[in-house]
Order: sequence, then C-alpha cells, then structure tokens
Amino acid sequence: MTNTDSFLRPKARGSTELGTCLMHPASIAVVGASDDAAKTGSRPMRFLDMAGFTGRIYPVNARSSMVMGRQAWSSLSVLPEVPDHVFVVSPTATVQDIVAECVALGVPVVTVLAGGFGESGDEGKILRQRLEASLANGATRLIGPNSIGVVNTRTGLMLTANAAFAEPGMPVGGLFLASHSGSMIGAVMSRGRALGVGFAGAISTGMEIDLSLGEICHATLDDPGIDCYALFLESIQHGEDLRRFAFEAARRGRTVVAYMLGRTPQAAELAQSHTGVLASENVVAEAFLKDCGIARVETLEGLLRAPALLRKLGPPVRRERSVQAALVTTTGAGGSMVVDQLALRGGEVVGPQAEILDELARGGVTVSPGRIVDLTLAGTRPEAMATTLELLLAAPEFDTVLAVAGSSARHQPELLVPSIQAAATGSAKPVVAFVTPDAPEALRTLTLAGVPCSGSPETCADIVAAAYARRPARAPVSAVAHAGQVRLDEARGYERLAAMGIAAAEHTVVPTSTEASPLLYPVAVKLLSANIVHKSDIGGVKLSIASDGAFATAVADIVRSVRQAHPEEACDSVLVQRMTPALGEVLLSYRVDREAGPFVMLAAGGTDAEIHADRTVRPAPVDIEEAWAMMAEVRALRKLEGFRGTQRGDMAALAQAIVSLSHAPPEIVEAEINPLLVLPEGRGVKAVDAVITVGTASAPNDLAR
Amino acid sequence: MTNTDSFLRPKARGSTELGTCLMHPASIAVVGASDDAAKTGSRPMRFLDMAGFTGRIYPVNARSSMVMGRQAWSSLSVLPEVPDHVFVVSPTATVQDIVAECVALGVPVVTVLAGGFGESGDEGKILRQRLEASLANGATRLIGPNSIGVVNTRTGLMLTANAAFAEPGMPVGGLFLASHSGSMIGAVMSRGRALGVGFAGAISTGMEIDLSLGEICHATLDDPGIDCYALFLESIQHGEDLRRFAFEAARRGRTVVAYMLGRTPQAAELAQSHTGVLASENVVAEAFLKDCGIARVETLEGLLRAPALLRKLGPPVRRERSVQAALVTTTGAGGSMVVDQLALRGGEVVGPQAEILDELARGGVTVSPGRIVDLTLAGTRPEAMATTLELLLAAPEFDTVLAVAGSSARHQPELLVPSIQAAATGSAKPVVAFVTPDAPEALRTLTLAGVPCSGSPETCADIVAAAYARRPARAPVSAVAHAGQVRLDEARGYERLAAMGIAAAEHTVVPTSTEASPLLYPVAVKLLSANIVHKSDIGGVKLSIASDGAFATAVADIVRSVRQAHPEEACDSVLVQRMTPALGEVLLSYRVDREAGPFVMLAAGGTDAEIHADRTVRPAPVDIEEAWAMMAEVRALRKLEGFRGTQRGDMAALAQAIVSLSHAPPEIVEAEINPLLVLPEGRGVKAVDAVITVGTASAPNDLAR
Repeated sequence: MTNTDSFLRPKARGSTELGTCLMHPASIAVVGASDDAAKTGSRPMRFLDMAGFTGRIYPVNARSSMVMGRQAWSSLSVLPEVPDHVFVVSPTATVQDIVAECVALGVPVVTVLAGGFGESGDEGKILRQRLEASLANGATRLIGPNSIGVVNTRTGLMLTANAAFAEPGMPVGGLFLASHSGSMIGAVMSRGRALGVGFAGAISTGMEIDLSLGEICHATLDDPGIDCYALFLESIQHGEDLRRFAFEAARRGRTVVAYMLGRTPQAAELAQSHTGVLASENVVAEAFLKDCGIARVETLEGLLRAPALLRKLGPPVRRERSVQAALVTTTGAGGSMVVDQLALRGGEVVGPQAEILDELARGGVTVSPGRIVDLTLAGTRPEAMATTLELLLAAPEFDTVLAVAGSSARHQPELLVPSIQAAATGSAKPVVAFVTPDAPEALRTLTLAGVPCSGSPETCADIVAAAYARRPARAPVSAVAHAGQVRLDEARGYERLAAMGIAAAEHTVVPTSTEASPLLYPVAVKLLSANIVHKSDIGGVKLSIASDGAFATAVADIVRSVRQAHPEEACDSVLVQRMTPALGEVLLSYRVDREAGPFVMLAAGGTDAEIHADRTVRPAPVDIEEAWAMMAEVRALRKLEGFRGTQRGDMAALAQAIVSLSHAPPEIVEAEINPLLVLPEGRGVKAVDAVITVGTASAPNDLAR
Repeated sequence: MTNTDSFLRPKARGSTELGTCLMHPASIAVVGASDDAAKTGSRPMRFLDMAGFTGRIYPVNARSSMVMGRQAWSSLSVLPEVPDHVFVVSPTATVQDIVAECVALGVPVVTVLAGGFGESGDEGKILRQRLEASLANGATRLIGPNSIGVVNTRTGLMLTANAAFAEPGMPVGGLFLASHSGSMIGAVMSRGRALGVGFAGAISTGMEIDLSLGEICHATLDDPGIDCYALFLESIQHGEDLRRFAFEAARRGRTVVAYMLGRTPQAAELAQSHTGVLASENVVAEAFLKDCGIARVETLEGLLRAPALLRKLGPPVRRERSVQAALVTTTGAGGSMVVDQLALRGGEVVGPQAEILDELARGGVTVSPGRIVDLTLAGTRPEAMATTLELLLAAPEFDTVLAVAGSSARHQPELLVPSIQAAATGSAKPVVAFVTPDAPEALRTLTLAGVPCSGSPETCADIVAAAYARRPARAPVSAVAHAGQVRLDEARGYERLAAMGIAAAEHTVVPTSTEASPLLYPVAVKLLSANIVHKSDIGGVKLSIASDGAFATAVADIVRSVRQAHPEEACDSVLVQRMTPALGEVLLSYRVDREAGPFVMLAAGGTDAEIHADRTVRPAPVDIEEAWAMMAEVRALRKLEGFRGTQRGDMAALAQAIVSLSHAPPEIVEAEINPLLVLPEGRGVKAVDAVITVGTASAPNDLAR
C-alpha cells in the first residue's frame, strides 16, 4: 500500500447513469427476499409495498415461487430484464456468486447488506478479495458490503432491511443523508421526523470496497429533489472522492454538513481500518472538511439543524474574519447562553451601533446598549421583535442574526414566532432562532418554514459556527501514484527545498577525513545519512563547534557513534553547517495523506508543539493569505511578532516558505523542516534540518486497489 | 468596598424558620393582587387557586374589597395575622413602603417581583439603598427584587407572576430549581415537564440585595421533599453562602448540579455587576464549583439530566483519577459518539478485561475485544444486554457503565429498556443510557425509573464528566475583613514568604550609596519600592551584574530612572539578589476574591502562561496531593519533569511551596511570586520577585454591606 492507492479506483460509468440506477431505478431485484415475516429477508419487499414503490420489483428466491404475493424468481439470470439495481439480502456466503452474476449480466448497481468481509479476521479478508476480484472486470458498481441499504423517500424506494423503516410516513424533503454507519441512518431519520426535517433519501455506504460515500453523493448531484447533504462520517476515507463531490455540489448550489466521529484519539481508534493515517487526527479532518466547503457540526442535533441555515447561505464564500452575529432576545439569560456557546466556537455576538438603538427608541422600544439586544418583556410584542430583527438584518456588520425567545415561545407561539418567521423568510441574511423553554410547536413551525432553529443553545451556536467556518470548496487534484519511495539525506533534502525556494543555513558536505571546517566557525557537524532519521539520538549531531580541534573531535565522535549504532552505514562524509543566530524556530512540514491528500503543517518549534498542541494544518497548497492565517493560529509565533516588545522575526519570509512548501512538486511524498529558523525581519528563514521522502517512479502501483 | 464585604451579611434568623416561611408558609399575602385578568397582578391568585394551595391567602389591594372571589385587604397592617410570606407584585415605586411595612410587622419573608433597583442607572441605585435601609433594622428577609417568585409544586404555593405557570400539571419530584435569572425558571421547568423530570420547587433570586441563592437553598435543607438542587447561575456571587450551602447539602446526602453562564469573557461581561472579580473568569468559577462539590454541566439539558446520576452517586467522594466508564452498545457508531464526547471532557471509556468477554462468550454473546462492548444485533436480545450490563457493573475498574441502544429503543422499547432499567436500578453503580434514535418513550420510561439517560451524546458525556469531577465539599472559612490594605516592598514580601516557608534567592537591601555588591557576583540589582509594581518597565531592574563597576552603574541608572519616572519616590536603597541558575520558572500566586474567597494559582513562567493559557487555579488552601494535581495540569512543567531526557526540577519543593502559599495567613490579601525559580531536584525553589498585599487592620469595614 502506498499513500495514494485509494485515488486510483477506475470509474466505470458516468455519474448520471449511476445516479439514476442508484436512486431512481426503473427496476429492482431483491435477492434473498423471503416470505417469512420473522426473517430480515422479508423486510425490503414489505417496506417497498408499504411505501408504494411503483417501479418493477423482482423478488429472487431459489426455493419459493411466490414472495409477499409476487412471483419470485430463482435467480437473477432468469429475470425478464437486467434490473437497474440489485439489493442482496442473502447471507455472506452467497454474496460473491450473486455479485459475479450481476457483473456477468451487466447489472449497473448492486447493494450488499451482509457483513463479514474483512471488518475483522482473516477469513473475511479472503472473502473481500474474492468479491473485489468479481467486480474487477465488469461495469457493475457495488455499495457495501455491510450497507444497511438505499432509500428514496420520494419514490418509495426502500432497498433496506432496517427495522427503522417499518414506520410509515417518513417526511419528505430536500435533505440527503449519507452515512458510513448503517445503524445511524434510522436513528438520524427518526430524529428528523421528530423535528419536522424531511429527507430526499438516505444511504449507508458500509465497507466501501467499491463505491465510496463521496462517489455515491456525487452520483446524486443531478437529482433535482436534493438540495442539501448530511453526512455521518466515521473518519475521512477516500478523501479525494469526498472533495470532488463537495466541489461539484458547491458548483451546483448544493450545501453539505457533516458530523464526524473521532474528535478524540480514543474514538478515532474505533474506526479501526484507518489507524495511522494523518486524516485520523481530528485537526487534519477538521481542516480537510472546511477546505472542502463542508460544514462540520460537533453536535448530533446540528446535523439536522444546519441544513436550514446552509440552504439560506448557499455554498461557502471566502470570508476575511470569523462570524459576527447580532442577537435579539426576550430573556437576558437565554441570550447569554448563545453568546457563550458561539464564543466557545470562535464566533462572536456583537452589539448594534447606537443608530439602531436610537431607531428602536423612536419606535418605542427602549434597549440598553450592550452586546445583546435585550427586549425583555417588550420583546413579546410582535412588532418590537419584528422591528428589531428588520433593523439588525439590514446592518451590514452582522453576518447573521440570532433571535432568542423565552417562555412565550411555548405558551403563546402565535406572538413571536410569526415575527421571527416573517423576518427570516423576508431577508437574504439568515435568522437563527433559539427558544429557551420546551417549545416543540414553535420549533416545528419555524422548521417547516425553513428557519434554522433549535431548543439547544449549543446546537444553535454549533450550526452558526460550522456554517461560517466553511471555505470555498477547492477542486481536487489527483494524487500521483508512486511505485515506491525513498528518503533523501539532509544535503539532498536541502537541494529539493532550494528548488522550492526555501533556503537552508549555509552548509557543505565534506569527507570524514576533513580536519577543519571549510565554513566559518561556529559550525554544526552532522552525520549525513538517508537511513538514520534520528541523528541526535545516536550522537550524530555536534553543535557550536568553534575550533579546528573541536571539529576533528566532533567528526571522529560521529564516525565512532555511527559504527557502534549502525555498523552497516557507510559514514564517509559529514554535513557542516554554520551556526545561525535566530529569533526563534518553527516546524514546517508537508505530507501526502493516503485518505485526505496533501497537507502542510506549521507548528511551534522545540517542545512547544507537543506540550501545548501548538500547531495548525491545512490541505495543500495554500496561498499567502492562508499562510498568514496559519501563522496567526500558532500561538508561540506571537513571540516573534513583537509580543511584549521583543524583536520581530521575518514573518513575511515564513509566510512565503509555507506557501512554497505547500506547493511541493508531485514527487514529494513527505517533507519535514525541523527546525526552520526565523531570522530578524528582512533576513529570511533558514532550514537547519530537512527530512524529505520522494516517490521513486511514476509507474502504476501494483498494490493499489 | 474591600474584597470581603459580601461575607459580612448578618443572619437574622435560623435557617429552619426561614425555610418554613419560604417554602411552607401557613399564610401568604399577595400585595398588588388584582382582579383584572389582563394585569400581571392577577396571576399569583389565579395560579394559587389553580394549584390548590391550602394555606391562608390574603390578597392586598388598596382599591378593591374583593379579588378573584376572595376578600381583599387594604394593607398588610389590617390583616388578621402577620403572614409568613409576602409576595409583592405592585410597581417599583410602591415597593419600599410595603417592605418597610413588612419589617414593622415582623413579616419573616418578603419576595419582590419588581425590577428597577439599580440593575442600571443612578435612580435605581438610590431606590436600592432605600430598600436596604428599610431592611436594616428588622428581622424580615427579602428575596429579590426582580425575583420571578417562589414555587412549591407539592403544596400549590405559586408565589409567581410568570406566565409559564399558567400551565397546569407541573410534575412533582425531588428537584429544587434555583436561578439567578427569572426567565429561566419557566424555561427549565417546561423542559423538565417534557422529559418527565419532577420538581419540588423553584425560586428565582433576582438581585440578591438580601438573601443570596446560597442562603435560600441552605434554608430549604430541612425540607425532606428535596433531594437534589439544580442551579442556574449567571456568575459566582456570594460564594461563601454557596459554599456553605453545598457543604451542608453534602453532609445531608443532597446533591447539587449547576449550569453557569460566562464560560467565555464575552458572556461573562453580560453579568455586568460583577466584572473585575476573579470569579468572573471561567477557570476560577469551574474550580470553585468543583471544590464545593457541585457538578457543573456545560449543556443546558445536562442541568435536568444530571440529577438522576447525582442521586445514584450521592455526594462527591475524593477520587484518585478521572472517570473510567465501560460502554455496551447495540450500535458501534452510537457508542463511538459517547466515547468521543466523554474523552473531550477528560473522561475515558475503557474496554473490559478478557475474562468478561470470555464470560459473555460462554453465555453465547460473542464480542470483539476493544474499547467498547459492541453487541451489534445480539444486543437487541434483552438477555445479552442484561448479562453484559451485569458483568460490567460488577467489574471494579469501572466507575459507571454507559448503555447505548440503537433503533430498537424507538421501535421496540419493550426489548432493551427493561433490561437497562433492571440493571440500573439493581446496582449501586450507575448506568447511564444513550439512545441513538428519537425515542421519547424509552427516555421517559428510564427517567421515571430514575435511570440517567439522554438522547444527546453530548449531554450523556457532560453529566458523567461533571458528576465525577466533583470533589468533596469543603466547609467555608469566613474571610477576615480588613479596613484597608497595603502593598509591601520586595524585601518585606520575602519576609512574609519566609514566614510561610517559601525561600527567596539570597538577597539583601543596601543604600544607594553602596559601591559594590555585598553578595557574590553575578547579582541582580532592583529598585525597592512598595509603590512601583512594574519595576522593569521603568528601568528598575538590572540583571547579571558581574563587577563592582557594573554594580555602581546599575545603582546609578536605577536612581536616575526612578527620579525621572516617579520623582515623588524616595529611592534611597536597592535590593541586591544573587543570580540563581535554575531549570525553569513558574508563576505562583494567591488572592482572596470578593465573591469566591481565597484562590491559589500556578502558571507557566515567562510568556507561556499568557500565550498558551497554561495555568491552573484552586480554591485555597490545598493539600500536597492537590498541589501535585495542579502541577500535572500546567503543561510547561513537563519540561521540568524529565520530559525528553531533560534534568528534573525539584518538583517536591514546588508542590510544598504551592501548599504553603495556599495556607497564607488571614492578613494576606494577595501574593504573587513571579517568577518562582525551580532548581534541580533536591535544591528547592526560590522566589526572585514577590508582590504581597496585606490587610491593614482587623477593625470592621464600614463599607461592607
């Protein structure tokens, strides 16, 4: 496996045809359909009938000629047509043959319910390989295995065996739910039902041995009934597919929200198949999703509440600052809760200008100046709320307006809810409503009117922060496949950096027979090796060498140390580098992640990055503005920005170095500059170590897929 | 105002009598009671009738002889008895006279609805002073002003004008709700109603010009119908009262949960009357509440969900580590959400021992080893869930067991809910349930059975983290009042530190005429002044002086600098201190906060405390274990603990210094050692600066109260 294998999956069909067969099939077959109500195999037919699916349905059962009152067929091969979509609900052991049959017949899409294909254990891995081999030579695309199925609520397409779908009357709407997890499909849809959130469809992607979640969503983009996507992700996997989907979705005016597990290492480890990849780190996943233009919520409720806000906002646009909101409330404490929660998430509620308060006062609404517009009891007068919302929505300094309603939202929803609804629907700028009491009727009314709202202050702040944290989606750049990779020694690493425009401190390579430094003292003398990464650990680095005598001793010490620790290593030359005084240092690195593509990371130098988690990442490449934004996020850099009267470092040079490394050429797989010295303003930045790994050939990688 | 004024309020009555008149009055009067249904004044009588209050009710109205079918009285003075509790719903302007009448009559408790007593504006402040003066000479205790009222759901005592109480059938239970905010009373109770959480009563404390929230809750501790307290706090105010209540509550087996605004500076500033106090900082408030044994939740839902868990756990006990939970689930993703959320809050889900899995396998339940016990579909068999819960509850390594149910919780609540309920109620150790779908019936059943549960993964983790973060409540120590305070110069500061057992680096004071250091070079030479705090800023500190010549120059420079910047300052002597090599430094400080009492703070030295927010606080005093716990929370100290092979600092000495400073004698108002040098192991810690402020007399403070 290389770090790019997931990007090489062939695309057998155009996405339009795939989308049609996936979500709007004219004909479907259910293999393993059963007449026995106690069996899972009985459910899809029952659900399809209940939902009134009008396409052609073919139950396939080798042992019965009738299933649920319909003619059953003994195999896919004897059907009167090749169905658009086959749902396989039969046991694991039968799956491979059925899929092979689908491939032979040219079935466009097959969805596989059964698990046991390598989630754990060797036996499963063999089954998985066989299934992959079956698919390899055909045009059939597979969802799963271990997919809970595919649902189109508008057409009654219920290709699922999930007991959650036994409940009739799922509300229909424009939201498409895609989930790695099968069990969360029913759970999220039931929550949507309770809130009045309607769905266009839902899918669980299971193991994704063929179609990934990103590809599946991408295939539905021509479906005019879908206007927003809600993703339940276990981890970032097949990131390029996800990015391509998100980019295309934005281009077409669709929005995407995601809830992702693995905010902490404890939970990330539960997404077992993806340990060790960079994308399993929360900060990386967070940066990746933002960069795809996907709103990542942190509350489960947010996954259902964000779409109303995203629909109003549309696809993300570039913003110069974090979100600023106005807040009008009938209860000070209720407003404060939202202020708190938004500030915790990097946004801010800001007070209105004096002119707005004056205008309100002229309308008979007296409000104290401050961060929130607290109408108190005057706010229960609908016209006070209406006037205030109108004024706040018209003020350009606010990205959004938060409307908080107290007890009246429960007891007299007819008072304020219509004002909030009217203001929200009449404005291009969004209104987000929070109600302090239990007020299901008010929330339902607002939800059905498309007004983003919640009874949880955490969720309200969550969706606002997530929606405005999105960046414009970027087009994916396909990663280059490398047959293998090799690490360069420090001197060759510096050459690569120089080619990217990043300077190293003055250095040269000399034979170990050299007795004096060719560079001005003081110098560092370092073991030169592509194989030994942690040079210091084995005594391979000697700093502040200031004389010929010390130089000779240093070289001899290094040679002796390497012979002891790594007798196989040649060690016939060393790298000599001038000691360079600097104001500070950072760690700057670049890496192509298998699941999420290229990233650039900037961290505090020394032990601060680790001790204080003082680092930031972005999908690469970044432009100069983004580089400055990254620098603003590394707190230790404040020491180099004239904090407390200290001398300013060359921050512009650092920003340029970040941009340069982030544009590393395709052969670079990994590059770490640790440290990169930051010199005083005008004097640049200098690498004093570099570990760079490059791909060795552009030949296709046999291990991929 | 000194920093201790709030601790000096006189206690006019024993808490038992107060509690009776507050929550169980035999007779009540409603002043301003009205017959006009459109007026606020009509509500209390209507609510009292509706709720069936059986005590004696006296409507007081100067202009009507009948109110709501009852005889009305023209004033309190003409009533046939002195009522236990008077509720004043008449306008602000009338309040002072009515309160004065209450005092004259000896009314035990008066609750005032009207606002306008100094929340803003000078006029209000005058009204407040008059009201305070009316109370000063009597035994009458006052709730408010600006209190939404007092409710006892068990007796129908509805001393409130809040429209939220127009709704009949508030569920009765053991939870007492106390809130600074009036509007949140109705909001929280409506949420409780929806969840099946019952209340014993509720109170909003308003401005607290007399009775504080802590005192009011304390007064209800003899009420056997209350077993848990839910506090909605705007800030930490009257902290000693709160601490006394919490301590006494724990002693009597009651538990306390709090939701507090002001997690962020933006929201904290909204609690306007308390800016500038230490307690307005979230970390301080957090430490204070923990130290009081109060579970602080961060979600609003947690305020209602935590009581079930707290009842099961009882008052807090000292714990050696953060909470460890087992987790059993029927859905992997559902379990992962809770793992994530708990880890975000400092807890951990840990996997079971192999023996437990073996035991499960013998019972026919096969589970993969790992952090969570994922039963998948087997889990919907009630006996699988029951057996697993039983085994996990019996394992001593788990503090609590989390049970996660998927879609079946909605569609077949009869399957798993009884197993979870039976295991939870049959065990001394708590079970906390999370359901992934919308499952109101399951949650209601569990709630009514007393099983802590939620449909939000954030809330589940929140209540577990908050409940186990509590520390045993400590008895309050009344702060000493000082008539004034004075800052000591550095030399006198060192003397105070020495008296507490904290050494300073070797130093001496010499006249400015001195020409050579009396101590071994190198030395620091410092301006000696009690008035100038930021000595460095005006050139008052000269470091690394290594010769007589440099010494003389340094002294002259300091004298000149002081003359320029502070011509009024004498500057006839300087402090000379030996430069002391150290491995690192910290900031250690102590402060008596007006609202929350004494605190000790440990922070990273240099700029790290500020840049990385690398600091920790505790209510003082702390013991040696707590000192070590504090040190573990300051990340920069890892550099002194042998991190990456560095030399170990004298951590034991640092721990002892923390303990010593936290036990500062009562005359110390504030002490800051910045920096405190940490020497190598065995060589101690040394203060190299000290700013100490002491109270100047023990005479009572005229400004208090």
